[in-house]
Amino acid sequence: MSAPASRIPGQRVTINDVAALAGVSKGAVSLAFNNRPGVSPATRERIFAAAGELGWSPNQTARNLSGQRAGIVGLAICRPARLLGLEPFYMEFISGIEDVLAERSCSLLLRLVRDLDEETALYKEWWRGRTVGGAILVDFHQDDPRIAPLRTLGMPAVAVGHPSLTGGFPSVWTDDASAAAEAVRYLAALGHRRIARVGGPAGLGHSGIRAAAFEDTMTELGLDGRRQVATGFVGEEGARATRSLLTAPDRPTAIVYDNDIMAVAGAAVAAEMGLAVPDDLSLLAWDDSQLCRLTHPPLSAMSHDVHQFGEQVARTLFGVIEGTHTGAYQVPTPSLTPRGSTGPPRRT
Amino acid sequence: MSAPASRIPGQRVTINDVAALAGVSKGAVSLAFNNRPGVSPATRERIFAAAGELGWSPNQTARNLSGQRAGIVGLAICRPARLLGLEPFYMEFISGIEDVLAERSCSLLLRLVRDLDEETALYKEWWRGRTVGGAILVDFHQDDPRIAPLRTLGMPAVAVGHPSLTGGFPSVWTDDASAAAEAVRYLAALGHRRIARVGGPAGLGHSGIRAAAFEDTMTELGLDGRRQVATGFVGEEGARATRSLLTAPDRPTAIVYDNDIMAVAGAAVAAEMGLAVPDDLSLLAWDDSQLCRLTHPPLSAMSHDVHQFGEQVARTLFGVIEGTHTGAYQVPTPSLTPRGSTGPPRRT
Repeated sequence: MSAPASRIPGQRVTINDVAALAGVSKGAVSLAFNNRPGVSPATRERIFAAAGELGWSPNQTARNLSGQRAGIVGLAICRPARLLGLEPFYMEFISGIEDVLAERSCSLLLRLVRDLDEETALYKEWWRGRTVGGAILVDFHQDDPRIAPLRTLGMPAVAVGHPSLTGGFPSVWTDDASAAAEAVRYLAALGHRRIARVGGPAGLGHSGIRAAAFEDTMTELGLDGRRQVATGFVGEEGARATRSLLTAPDRPTAIVYDNDIMAVAGAAVAAEMGLAVPDDLSLLAWDDSQLCRLTHPPLSAMSHDVHQFGEQVARTLFGVIEGTHTGAYQVPTPSLTPRGSTGPPRRT
Repeated sequence: MSAPASRIPGQRVTINDVAALAGVSKGAVSLAFNNRPGVSPATRERIFAAAGELGWSPNQTARNLSGQRAGIVGLAICRPARLLGLEPFYMEFISGIEDVLAERSCSLLLRLVRDLDEETALYKEWWRGRTVGGAILVDFHQDDPRIAPLRTLGMPAVAVGHPSLTGGFPSVWTDDASAAAEAVRYLAALGHRRIARVGGPAGLGHSGIRAAAFEDTMTELGLDGRRQVATGFVGEEGARATRSLLTAPDRPTAIVYDNDIMAVAGAAVAAEMGLAVPDDLSLLAWDDSQLCRLTHPPLSAMSHDVHQFGEQVARTLFGVIEGTHTGAYQVPTPSLTPRGSTGPPRRT
């Protein structure tokens, strides 16, 4: 049994070192780490302790074998850093990804980029430099310029977005069109005729899908009191859009927001303008989060488990890397959770 | 000039490939990437285009030279993934780190761990496997068990926390004690005698520092109507703590919260119980964020630019890696931003 102190610092640790330190065979180390029977609990503990002391994990072995950093998954996000810090969506999404990655002793390599060209160049560098074993592609645009170069690259990747946007990449998506239609139908059923939507950036694919579904459903229901405002997902912009909608003639009696933070901002604007929620104004958030339950009244929302969505994206990526997944995976459609912020409009 | 199509996919790209494709010398590529004079704007553009096409960056060169992944910085966070997704602090902190990393074409390697032993083992793996060039250590506890093994490891690291907690690691810290004292003094000056604090987990170093400063300042001011509740930073726990404080005999007339989301929850509980803010109850948040400005009334807060804090942490880490930084760096102390949620208590 070799003492760990005799190893040269920085020298690569192998499964042999772990087996030697724990006083077991290589096969026993493998069984222990693959959570398979054949190793007693006490031996398993000894193996884990030896691996911990040496800083070894089975992951490192996989990496040595493949010559590829399968233990690292890349995620480039093309949004200003300050904005990212303010958007609850991404942190919940990333936390879901991390949950699945941690199970497999994998880590997420995160980079903010300024534009899609920089993003494409980064993925080329990560893949050719063997930095990542695969990547998660987000925020698809119409005719997204990343698709062609990244398909050529051959890096395993999962695209987050509707298959109509993601150019043949294996994808994970939510049916935003049906959810947007459900939101409008619910408000119409409560008696609202003038419904507005405070949406995300016009260029983003999923914002476009929601905007079109909003228009179509309003038309289908014969409601022409519709207005849509595009924003950058920031609370202040949600507040500004709400003030502008509420001070216009024929103000809406209901507003649908594309994220939770803008809906919270909308509720504060209603309070500031002396409008009662929901009697004077109904508010409906998207991507239900704890924020929606913490306001008074709590906000009705299109509930969507963003954490679970992130988990599914990570699981799908592992499927792509292992060659067991190729198509599109649809997660549950966001569904309406009515709370105190929506109700019939007051008769005037 | 070699055509890029002739390269074998996956083969390592070098500065020679970039120079060949751009039709310039290696020296010109280096000048262009180091932003030095001696290359015309047109040539510079051609070099950047060639590097982009090949997926090359100077960073990769540095990495090859040093044998260490200087382009990757590690951050392990020991919190449940779901909780992380709900805490605004971390995303703003990470966005600040990313802002500085992006300037240097570096990326953040993020991993959630279950306990401090797993975290220590992970850093050993990352450092010995040459995965990271340095690390950011967060959430220090009293007598933190990570300190001894990680100091032995010799990995460049910056610790986020008070120097009394971070065991000799170069650190970046805020004076939480002075800020907590300022919060109490301000509320006392408004006339509050019964002040409560809804804090973070008792084991976390910075929560402990704030708790002690709260106690000391209340004692110094001769105020004995004090109560402190420890929570896990979650909104629901903040709501529960607030309800329990407000239903006790001799309820507090002012509450200080350790994060913004719990303060928002506290405001909703006040509304639910029919208490007017600030007449019946003053609320003071910590880590001012857009959330605090979006409630009605907006929340007074101990303002602290978390994004800038993250930037400073990343800059300090680069200083440590480059050998130019060793000591402790103090960022500005959180300062009081009074808004509508604090005022003198109503005379009863």
